[in-house]
Amino acid sequence: MSGHFVFDPAIENDFPNFVTHLECSYTGETFPSNQIHGLSPAGKPLLVRYDLPALATSVSKDALAARPGGFWKYREFLPVRQSSNVVSLGEVMTPLIPLHKLAAKGGELLIKDEGRLPTGSFKARGLALAVAMAKELGIRRLAMPTNGNAGAAMAAYATRAGMETTIFCPDDTPEVNVSEIEYQGGKVYRVNGLINDCGKIVGEGKEPTGWFDCSTLKEPYRIEGKKTMGLELAEQLGWDVPDVIFYPTGGGTGLIGMWKAFAELEAIGWIGSKRPKMVAVQSTGCAPIVKAFEDGEEHAPLWENAFTIASGIRVPVAVGDFLILRAVRESGGFAIAVEDKDIVQAQAEVAREEGLLLCPEGAATFAAYKQSVAEGRIKASDRAVLYNCATGLKYPMPVISRRLDKNQPIDYSSI
Amino acid sequence: MSGHFVFDPAIENDFPNFVTHLECSYTGETFPSNQIHGLSPAGKPLLVRYDLPALATSVSKDALAARPGGFWKYREFLPVRQSSNVVSLGEVMTPLIPLHKLAAKGGELLIKDEGRLPTGSFKARGLALAVAMAKELGIRRLAMPTNGNAGAAMAAYATRAGMETTIFCPDDTPEVNVSEIEYQGGKVYRVNGLINDCGKIVGEGKEPTGWFDCSTLKEPYRIEGKKTMGLELAEQLGWDVPDVIFYPTGGGTGLIGMWKAFAELEAIGWIGSKRPKMVAVQSTGCAPIVKAFEDGEEHAPLWENAFTIASGIRVPVAVGDFLILRAVRESGGFAIAVEDKDIVQAQAEVAREEGLLLCPEGAATFAAYKQSVAEGRIKASDRAVLYNCATGLKYPMPVISRRLDKNQPIDYSSI
Ligand SMILES: Cc1ncc(COP(=O)(O)O)c(C=O)c1O
Ligand SMILES: Cc1ncc(COP(=O)(O)O)c(C=O)c1O
Repeated sequence: MSGHFVFDPAIENDFPNFVTHLECSYTGETFPSNQIHGLSPAGKPLLVRYDLPALATSVSKDALAARPGGFWKYREFLPVRQSSNVVSLGEVMTPLIPLHKLAAKGGELLIKDEGRLPTGSFKARGLALAVAMAKELGIRRLAMPTNGNAGAAMAAYATRAGMETTIFCPDDTPEVNVSEIEYQGGKVYRVNGLINDCGKIVGEGKEPTGWFDCSTLKEPYRIEGKKTMGLELAEQLGWDVPDVIFYPTGGGTGLIGMWKAFAELEAIGWIGSKRPKMVAVQSTGCAPIVKAFEDGEEHAPLWENAFTIASGIRVPVAVGDFLILRAVRESGGFAIAVEDKDIVQAQAEVAREEGLLLCPEGAATFAAYKQSVAEGRIKASDRAVLYNCATGLKYPMPVISRRLDKNQPIDYSSI
Repeated sequence: MSGHFVFDPAIENDFPNFVTHLECSYTGETFPSNQIHGLSPAGKPLLVRYDLPALATSVSKDALAARPGGFWKYREFLPVRQSSNVVSLGEVMTPLIPLHKLAAKGGELLIKDEGRLPTGSFKARGLALAVAMAKELGIRRLAMPTNGNAGAAMAAYATRAGMETTIFCPDDTPEVNVSEIEYQGGKVYRVNGLINDCGKIVGEGKEPTGWFDCSTLKEPYRIEGKKTMGLELAEQLGWDVPDVIFYPTGGGTGLIGMWKAFAELEAIGWIGSKRPKMVAVQSTGCAPIVKAFEDGEEHAPLWENAFTIASGIRVPVAVGDFLILRAVRESGGFAIAVEDKDIVQAQAEVAREEGLLLCPEGAATFAAYKQSVAEGRIKASDRAVLYNCATGLKYPMPVISRRLDKNQPIDYSSI
C-alpha cells in the first residue's frame, strides 16, 4: 500500500514536527514520511525518524512538566503534523503504583497501570496515533486483527475521528471486548482461529475492500504511540530509567516502542546511556520469543497450538520478532515464560495483598518478576517496573456465591 | 459509635491540617474532630469544618498546579493528618472529555470520566478518605452496604491499608463488582433486597461484630473525598465552575461534596459567587429526590419497588436527602428523572457517535441533558458537565454474534 497517496504540503503544519523520514527496520532503506505506508518492501516494519537535534531545541523538560498529563503532551516526539488531526478521548498519565508488600527485600516494585487509559488498555496509545495519522493521510477505512484490547481502542478512536473500522478477533476473545468494539462503532467478527488467522483475513481483504491494515507494526505509527510509555516512564522517574522492565509480550510493540523512546531520549541528552534490562514475558503455552531468545535466533517461528489465558499475549508469530529480540539482547535483559497457573496465582496474590486488580497479562509480569528474583536473573534490590497493560475488569473472575436472606435472623457470629 | 476513641495528639501531625471540628449538618451542633464518629446524635450526617483563612495562606493555586494529579494533591482541604495514613492506589486527575457532536448547538458538553480512578469508579474518592481516616483513628474492621462500586473501592483501599471489610450488596449487583470485591480482599454477601436492606444488616451487625459502618454519609469522611470532584473540576476549568452539572444521584454524596467544595473555594476567594445549577439525575424507576423536589419537600421518603438498570442510582432512601435537595435548590438547579429506555439509548448514542463507553448512570446524565435542553430547563449555550461516575466496562453490553469461518472462502463484498 506504499506511496500511492501524497500528503498535501499546502495544508498548514501547525504542530512542531521533526519527522525527517521513515526507515526500514531491517534493511535501513529510507522512505518519505508524507505518504501512506504499510510494511517496507522487505516486508519489515518501518520506523519513524526525527531531526532530534532540532527537536531538542524546541522543547524542554520544564515545558513538558507544565503541560497537562496524557501522551499527547509528547507531541514533538510524535509524527502528527496538525493539531486538528489529534484524536483524544481523555488520555491521562498512567500511575506508577508501588507494591510495598510484594517487592523483593530491599527492592522497589512499581506497577505502571495502563488500564486507566481510554478503553481500559495501553492499546489506546498506539491506536490513537495510528488513527490520527490515518486521518492526516486521508484514510477512511481501517481494519485490524485483535486479541481484544487493540480492537476496542481502534473502534473508539476511529469513531471519534469519524472513520469506519472492521475488526476480527479469535472466537474466545473476552466477551466484554467484543461488545465494546461493536458498541463503540466498530464492526467486529469472531473467527475460529488465532490472531494470525484474523490477520490473514485482513491481509487478503485489503485489495477487495480498500481497508488500511492497522495490524501491529504493519503500519508505522502504532509504535510511535507505544513509545510514549517509555517517555512517560522516564519523565515520572525524574528523567531516569528503572533497572528492569517486565513487559507482557505479544506483538511486542510496547517493548520495541519503549526501546526506541530511550534511544531518542539519550540522543537528545535527557537520559544517559543506562538502560533498563528489558524482559519479554510470555506464557509457557505461547512462547515463541522466549524460545528464539534461548536458541540464539534472530527470528521466532510460528508457535503451534498456542494457548494461554492471558489472551493479549497469545500471539503465535510476530512480524517484529527480530526487533523484540534485538532490544532484549542489547539491554542485557531476557525473555521468560511463566505458566498459566502462576499467572492465576499472581493475579490473586496482588489483589489480595495490595488491593490491585491486574489483568492476566499484567499478572504474568509479576509471576515473571518473582521467578526472576528467585533464579537470580535480576537482583532483589533492583527497581523493577511491571506493565499492567489493561484493566483487570475486562477479564472473567471467580464467581462468588455467598448469600444472606434478609427475611431470616442473621447469625452475625458466622459472618 | 461517637467519641469512644481519642486520637493520640502525641502522634506527629506531618500534614498541614486545618480541621477545626465536625458539625451536624442538620442542627449545627459541633463535635471534636479527633474522635470516631458516625451520624450525629440527631441521626444526621456530620460535616468536617476547616480553618479556611489559615488554609488559604498555606496553599496557592500555583502550588497545586505544580503537584502531580490525583485527589490526594488537595491535602490541605482534607482531614487526614499524617501522610503515613494516606492510602493510594494510583489516583489520577480524571479527564474532562468534550462531546463535540452531541453538545447542544452553541453549547459545550463535557464528560468528567471518573471511570479512570482506582477500581473504575468515583467511589475511590470517598472510600480512600474513609479508609485513611479509619486508619488514622485506629479502626480495623469496616462494613458497608453497596450497589457495587463503593464495595469494590472499599475492599481495595482497605486491603491496601491492611484492614478487614465485610460488604453486602443486592443479589442482582453486576457480577464483576461482586467478584472484584472478594478478589480484592473483601468479604461479600449477596442479599435478596435493595441497598437499604443491606444497610440494615450492617446497622444491626455493628454491635455484635464491632464493625465500623462506612455507609454513605453515616461516617463524616467519604463526603470529603467526594468533595475533591468539585475541587478538581474547578481547577481543570481554570478555577471556574460550569453553568450546570448533571450528577447521577443515589445517596448523593458527590453532589453534596461538590457543593461543599464550591463553598470552601469561595470562602478562600479562589472562585466567585457564581454556582453551577446542580441537577440531580435519577431514573423514573427510583426517583425519591425528584419527587421530593417537585413536592417542595425537605425530605424524601422511601421509594417503593425501586427498579432501574442503573444500579448505582437505585437508592430508595438517602440519609442525606435534605442536603441534596438544599444544594439543588440553592443552586437554582433541579432534579430530573429519565426512563431506563432513554438511558440505554443515551449510552448507545454516546458510544456510537463519540467512541465513549459510559456507565448506565453516566448515560442517564446525558439523557437528562438532552431532556433539559429540549424542555428549556437549561440553555443550549450552557457549558454543562456530566459525571460519568464509573467505567462502562463493568456493565453488561449487547452480545455480538457475527462470525467468520477461516476455513471457508470469505466473501469480502458482504463484510
Ligand atoms: C493486556 C495486554 N497485554 C499485553 C499485550 C501484548 O502487547 P504487544 O502486542 O505490544 O506485545 C496485549 C495485546 O493485545 C494486551 O492486550
Ligand atoms: C456509577 C455510579 N453512579 C452514581 C452513583 C450514585 O452516587 P451517590 O451515592 O454519590 O449519589 C453510584 C453509587 O453507587 C454509582 O456507582
